Amino acid sequence: MAPHPFKILSVEETRLARDVILSLHPDVVVDFREIFLQEPNKELMKQYLEAEHAAQPGQSVHSKRPPRLAKCMYDIIGSDKVPEYHESLVDVETKKRVNHEVIGKEHQASLTLWEFEHLVQACKESEEFQAAIKEFQLPEGFELVVEPWPYGGLDATSENRRYFQGLCFGQDTRNGNPDSNFYAYPLPIIPVMDAHTRKICRIDRLATGGKGDSLTGKTHSPRILDHCQSAEYVPELVEGGTRKDMKPINITQPEGTSFKVSDESFVEWQKWSFRVSFNPREGAVLHDVRYEGRSIIYRLSISEMSVPYADARAPFHRKQAFDFGDGGAGNCANNLSLGCDCLGVIKYFDAVIVGSDGEPKEHPNVICLHEQDNGIGWKHTNWRTGRAVVTRLRELVIQFIITLANYEYVFAYKLDTAGGITLEVRATGIVSTVNIDPGKTSEYGNVVSGGVLAQNHQHIFAARLDPAIDGHNNTLLYEESHTAPWDKETNPNGNFYEIRKTIVNRSQGLDAAPEHNRTFKIINPNKKNKLSGNPVSYKFQPPATQKLLAAPGSLQYQRALFTQHHVWATKYQDNELYAAGRYTLQSQVEVGGVHDMVKRKDDITNEDLVLWSVFGLTHNPRVEDWPVMPSEIFQVHFKPSDFFERNPAIDVPSSKNQASVLAKDCCSSGQKL
Amino acid sequence: MAPHPFKILSVEETRLARDVILSLHPDVVVDFREIFLQEPNKELMKQYLEAEHAAQPGQSVHSKRPPRLAKCMYDIIGSDKVPEYHESLVDVETKKRVNHEVIGKEHQASLTLWEFEHLVQACKESEEFQAAIKEFQLPEGFELVVEPWPYGGLDATSENRRYFQGLCFGQDTRNGNPDSNFYAYPLPIIPVMDAHTRKICRIDRLATGGKGDSLTGKTHSPRILDHCQSAEYVPELVEGGTRKDMKPINITQPEGTSFKVSDESFVEWQKWSFRVSFNPREGAVLHDVRYEGRSIIYRLSISEMSVPYADARAPFHRKQAFDFGDGGAGNCANNLSLGCDCLGVIKYFDAVIVGSDGEPKEHPNVICLHEQDNGIGWKHTNWRTGRAVVTRLRELVIQFIITLANYEYVFAYKLDTAGGITLEVRATGIVSTVNIDPGKTSEYGNVVSGGVLAQNHQHIFAARLDPAIDGHNNTLLYEESHTAPWDKETNPNGNFYEIRKTIVNRSQGLDAAPEHNRTFKIINPNKKNKLSGNPVSYKFQPPATQKLLAAPGSLQYQRALFTQHHVWATKYQDNELYAAGRYTLQSQVEVGGVHDMVKRKDDITNEDLVLWSVFGLTHNPRVEDWPVMPSEIFQVHFKPSDFFERNPAIDVPSSKNQASVLAKDCCSSGQKL
Repeated sequence: MAPHPFKILSVEETRLARDVILSLHPDVVVDFREIFLQEPNKELMKQYLEAEHAAQPGQSVHSKRPPRLAKCMYDIIGSDKVPEYHESLVDVETKKRVNHEVIGKEHQASLTLWEFEHLVQACKESEEFQAAIKEFQLPEGFELVVEPWPYGGLDATSENRRYFQGLCFGQDTRNGNPDSNFYAYPLPIIPVMDAHTRKICRIDRLATGGKGDSLTGKTHSPRILDHCQSAEYVPELVEGGTRKDMKPINITQPEGTSFKVSDESFVEWQKWSFRVSFNPREGAVLHDVRYEGRSIIYRLSISEMSVPYADARAPFHRKQAFDFGDGGAGNCANNLSLGCDCLGVIKYFDAVIVGSDGEPKEHPNVICLHEQDNGIGWKHTNWRTGRAVVTRLRELVIQFIITLANYEYVFAYKLDTAGGITLEVRATGIVSTVNIDPGKTSEYGNVVSGGVLAQNHQHIFAARLDPAIDGHNNTLLYEESHTAPWDKETNPNGNFYEIRKTIVNRSQGLDAAPEHNRTFKIINPNKKNKLSGNPVSYKFQPPATQKLLAAPGSLQYQRALFTQHHVWATKYQDNELYAAGRYTLQSQVEVGGVHDMVKRKDDITNEDLVLWSVFGLTHNPRVEDWPVMPSEIFQVHFKPSDFFERNPAIDVPSSKNQASVLAKDCCSSGQKL
Repeated sequence: MAPHPFKILSVEETRLARDVILSLHPDVVVDFREIFLQEPNKELMKQYLEAEHAAQPGQSVHSKRPPRLAKCMYDIIGSDKVPEYHESLVDVETKKRVNHEVIGKEHQASLTLWEFEHLVQACKESEEFQAAIKEFQLPEGFELVVEPWPYGGLDATSENRRYFQGLCFGQDTRNGNPDSNFYAYPLPIIPVMDAHTRKICRIDRLATGGKGDSLTGKTHSPRILDHCQSAEYVPELVEGGTRKDMKPINITQPEGTSFKVSDESFVEWQKWSFRVSFNPREGAVLHDVRYEGRSIIYRLSISEMSVPYADARAPFHRKQAFDFGDGGAGNCANNLSLGCDCLGVIKYFDAVIVGSDGEPKEHPNVICLHEQDNGIGWKHTNWRTGRAVVTRLRELVIQFIITLANYEYVFAYKLDTAGGITLEVRATGIVSTVNIDPGKTSEYGNVVSGGVLAQNHQHIFAARLDPAIDGHNNTLLYEESHTAPWDKETNPNGNFYEIRKTIVNRSQGLDAAPEHNRTFKIINPNKKNKLSGNPVSYKFQPPATQKLLAAPGSLQYQRALFTQHHVWATKYQDNELYAAGRYTLQSQVEVGGVHDMVKRKDDITNEDLVLWSVFGLTHNPRVEDWPVMPSEIFQVHFKPSDFFERNPAIDVPSSKNQASVLAKDCCSSGQKL
């Protein structure tokens, strides 16, 4: 039986795609970047899903199966040694290439981790860089660490070539611990590599001044790390050791889980069902999310994020990561650990990645799935009878975690027993640091440790929601609540407020308006709730978080036009998955992102529409964010609104949990002293 | 040894206070309302706490102990039978009254639950009301339920007397279940009782029309419940039964809890310490919250909430509960159940309440305390070595739950291992309903079930935070992040954004401004963080929720002036605890609330200041809120900002939880079909 159309490519399918590509490009070097599933054309998939859900269990699906396509991304290096970036689609069943694009030089392919290794190697081999490092008199026992970064936005003045840069730190090796925290010892130097020549082509020197100092002044002494101090986070090195009085909290499911997973991708849980997949760019993606068989979402993903830094000094205007487009969130996904990344009974999912030779291998434990308790789901006590009925809010969590050099992000999709869908992002990891002279402070950030300036920055995320509220033809509207004017006939006592509805007719960017309780509803205009008479819908209130602060026209602004609205509504088109466009690495302006998509001004009423939710954090670091920052948690909630005919959790049992006990030994009624 | 000054009055102390009051008011009837601890004058308490924290364990505290005072609230009913409302302070050690107030007729005492019983009795005894009910031809087997409510705001045109009103419903008794949901069968009639005469003095008839109908038209037929339908929530009556496939999640602490409780009020957990108390008005209150002995909060409480309804038809302009001031959140607190209201290892706290005779009795399990896991606290993976260090975010939860007729609120204070303090409110329970004619819809709410209109309304909460950031002299400021102008010298690349700080010099109301990332910081201007040089502080971002929508000048607006800002900053004064003032029952305007407090325009820099956080929900009900609504969750986060010298959770151990296991039986790699 052929794999389900949403199932990721197997190792075998991946290898097959590679072999097709290699056979089509003889006599040249093929340097692979990615091979992953090209999701089916939606028209085909709609038919397939309809047939799939109409089929009886055990029966086969009576629908044409969409072709099984592999997206292959690779460089071709011919005799001129200049790599040329290609993208091909290979049908792994017919073993034929069905599409082939040679990408123009105006775009850069996403980076691969082995390009990062090239930078480290180039630094080692560069005499100029080695000499520059020698100028710093590192303390005894300290060694250089080069942290590869994307180059950031390409200045209009720079030649259009592929670059990488390295942030440099000293690492204290005297403790013999390879995980000693080098971010506490930043060096004010950045080597830049030309990716084609694999040579260091420039060395940027960084200013280390503070308030009142010029933007370019390099006021630091050669003994640049002497005023820095250790800031360890690995438990054996943490100053003062780890606390000893934290008793374990164990979460167990003695009767097993309430979820079922089949086909390594199909999940059923508490009336919900969906497919989960994983790709190198977006990480975990949910498909065909349904409740009691009713369609809610066709596809849900985290699409992009941008992290611009606000330090006015060059070259920090280029410091702006696009962690999905630049390097691929999926590529940076952690191998998750039992008992660490989540508690309880956990199902892990693996992915497949390729090396530069295109050889696939398993990328293990990239997604974890578990259920968890989130407190009281609903409760009512009849005060006459004294009877309380209380149920728990149960959630199913689909989580993946990425590491991007210093930072980590924990992404989770949570489905709950009340029909809700929550997107959660936790930002943690180590803030990006630069060296600052002793005793100085800066308007570009906060001094979080001796000599360590944590620069002000923003994290702006874009989630992509392709809804299918009881079908694919949906309409977006927003509702606001407004004070009604006094009126003898309609508002004689001034307590009436009116709900105003605005239909979003055309694709466009829209904003949060919490002062009006602005609530977006994705309705199916063709289906009414039997009780209320309103169209069935899911609603959400976009978090009113701050937008990108970089000035209009600046490189940071131009590259991240998707950050200019909290909500974007577009008409569905195949292959429009990325809020900031397909190519973000070294971009100068967002191309093909939501800002371009809405320009079509498509009619999106009673249409197949896509919603993009943009939210973020202006992160002006505090000392408490050092050396590893406590998770900053963001959530976006999608909730049914007249989609169901009652609270979908009303049938959740209110049974008493038998494992809960009274706290005894810890508690005495005696006085404190 | 005398009780700690923050400890609630014992049964004995309460009884003693009652006896003092009875001895002072001979020859009259004394109808008690409340007796509870009057917290000490702050100046005395500051000295006491200083001495307490300086004392060695086991030593006594070298400070004058503040007097132990009981606040006694009661009606005096003399020979004229007209109750007069008194408030007295009794020193339970000297057995003397130290203060006595006779409250003017312009204010109404908070209601007691036995006044609600009077209403039910009065309805039974009222021939007029009984005749009115007979006009409705209730279906066979249905019985009348009268749900007592506060009268709401007193119209300018009404006589200033004490009233109660009843919302009326039919209850289907054919299933023999006393918890059958009567809110599904609303009757369009409201009896009003004069509390002094205990007689029904008026019967309000409710309109049942929809869009286009007049505000007063009573278009309904006598068979007013025929178009209503059953909507049960108790498990044995739920349509379709409860789901059977939800497997238990057990939370256990085999090595015991990480918290210690002594003296039934003093809690220590993960470097935190505080006292917890409980009073009839505010419910659970935290006092003297410290981390590693450093003071953060003097007192933290939920101060008030208002729930105005937006139905333009009389008498709904009066429908506006003040659930703390009107009846007392503490009085309405649930007796919490093991394994239902929270999971794990739970410590419960009891309170003391009095009857109308002043006789005290235990109010059991009004607060629950437990620790819980809240996902990843911080994580970093060194991609060079592959080593991941991941710790959990652990929280200590202090929770109480109140039932107010149809609604419930779950209030929780959460302290966490990262030094954060979260206020959480969950709104659940049953939405307030009125009857609507068959087939109609309304602009005043949503039809959530046959004949049932759930009216649009708001819930607006006020929390009170009396900070003591490393001492009592604090300053409030807010920081905003703003796009900086392009400038060759200071912002040559347009990526710089500036942080603007504004000190709040005078007491005032302030608003959220998420578009500028407005962040309030409570700083101690006298103490600087050693690393950053900034004053130590705790910060918070007020949720930018919608304010009260009722029109300026309306009764709803006037009564809840506290809802006009997201943040109020006032100078501390003893006895200023209530955002909407001491007396809210039947108020016409907010008196003595935050709106009045800020009029003093006190200098609040480097002073003992108090912060009030106002947030809420515009609740336009959806069908999914019926018959019991899924919890709507609100959180306000207070976080250290340069208060500590590193992430306070950096020493949380990263040990692997040994109880977590792989999901196996639930998962098959086989195909779905």
